[in-house]
Amino acid sequence: MAGTDSTRTPVTGGPAIVLVAPQLGENIGAAARAMLNCGLVDLRLVRPRDGWPNPAAEAAASGAGDVLARARLYEATAEAIADLEVVIAATARRRDMVKPVLTPRAAAARLRQEEAAGRRTGVLFGPERTGLTNDDVALADAVLQVPLNPAFASLNLAQAVLLIGYAWFEAADGTTGESLPMAETRPATKAELMGLFRQLEAGLDAGGFLYPPEKRPSMVRNIRNMITRAGWTEQEVRTFRGIITALIRAGRAPRDPGGD
Amino acid sequence: MAGTDSTRTPVTGGPAIVLVAPQLGENIGAAARAMLNCGLVDLRLVRPRDGWPNPAAEAAASGAGDVLARARLYEATAEAIADLEVVIAATARRRDMVKPVLTPRAAAARLRQEEAAGRRTGVLFGPERTGLTNDDVALADAVLQVPLNPAFASLNLAQAVLLIGYAWFEAADGTTGESLPMAETRPATKAELMGLFRQLEAGLDAGGFLYPPEKRPSMVRNIRNMITRAGWTEQEVRTFRGIITALIRAGRAPRDPGGD
Repeated sequence: MAGTDSTRTPVTGGPAIVLVAPQLGENIGAAARAMLNCGLVDLRLVRPRDGWPNPAAEAAASGAGDVLARARLYEATAEAIADLEVVIAATARRRDMVKPVLTPRAAAARLRQEEAAGRRTGVLFGPERTGLTNDDVALADAVLQVPLNPAFASLNLAQAVLLIGYAWFEAADGTTGESLPMAETRPATKAELMGLFRQLEAGLDAGGFLYPPEKRPSMVRNIRNMITRAGWTEQEVRTFRGIITALIRAGRAPRDPGGD
Repeated sequence: MAGTDSTRTPVTGGPAIVLVAPQLGENIGAAARAMLNCGLVDLRLVRPRDGWPNPAAEAAASGAGDVLARARLYEATAEAIADLEVVIAATARRRDMVKPVLTPRAAAARLRQEEAAGRRTGVLFGPERTGLTNDDVALADAVLQVPLNPAFASLNLAQAVLLIGYAWFEAADGTTGESLPMAETRPATKAELMGLFRQLEAGLDAGGFLYPPEKRPSMVRNIRNMITRAGWTEQEVRTFRGIITALIRAGRAPRDPGGD
């Protein structure tokens, strides 16, 4: 459609919008429209229910078809966010997780601040009916909740994308004045964190920590949460991987603790 | 739908939403939903194209049917706003009029301010295809424009209602927009952190990690930094202490990693 640029221009910045297991094509299309309204173009789809491409999405995207054409498809949430450094999970309900909960405006400020520091960001949205799984939320650095009329808080997927997209657009000049000096390093990517998680969890399985089996998923989630929240740099993730190896080695060849 | 109050409670305050000559019933219904999301209930319709009531509107309003049921019908815009003291006209394009042009946030601040002074307010929206006539805009005290991607600024009627409704809702909220839910726990004390540090550093000494000795102080500092920054709760500190023990145990009695 006229008015949109169909060349594959580089991503303009702004968060990737990651729709996890979206059900209705028309919601994907409407979300693409809302994205483009707000200048966002990096759409990522994880296992869309009705396959991809989806004619219903194209019909609903009228004018924003280019965003759909550029959309990338993934099998797993972790894959879809592997290259991102800061991820915010949109959820409609409280989760029992210790993780910052942001309004759209606060989330937008955070996203702008991270982008200004050169970091790649994204926002996760779950399926229409059920929302994100706790496992997906655990991968995120913060949670986004839209404070709405408590008696009627259900928001259509595309409307949720619009509210956060618009908050991002609106925040263009609203820096918070807060930064985290990082000198020679950079925040870890989600792929680097996943590598750390796998190493740690293998060690914990070997040490009998993730036990009994029925509690393993929630234990893993809690540990991933507390590590994600730390916001470690790539260097710190490497340090922590070294720590894991060293602790296992400490068990293997016991020395006098504290001796050197 | 459950969760909405169907009694005819008095209007809660907040601007009346006036849809002038809306074309599609589904847009009226979706606008009613967006209103109720934001706690707005005073819907006014001026000459809806397909008459009133409208089954398509009712289908789209799911859960917000009460807003439709209370909607009032008018023949002319001037009638619909007769009882209001401050009216803002939402328009997608610049008008050649000397009238304040407000973003949603600025409009919301203005509306809140007028309401606080006891004035009745409203926001006018035009028909989907053409927008408000200049005559209708001329009735308003100010113009509302949503600044969007100039290459793709077309906004669905219900989305426009949502953006101004949400801005109004948000303008009531004096919080910083960030919170950290901690449910059953509390942040760790510094003493608890020190206990963790000592246990970890003893393990790392035993594993030969804090080596060579002249680098030990800065390595310890870096590790303490990355853990302090995580802002762990008392529960998380205990979890991490369990992790340290388990990793050392994993080295002591090697099992198949991942097995359990």
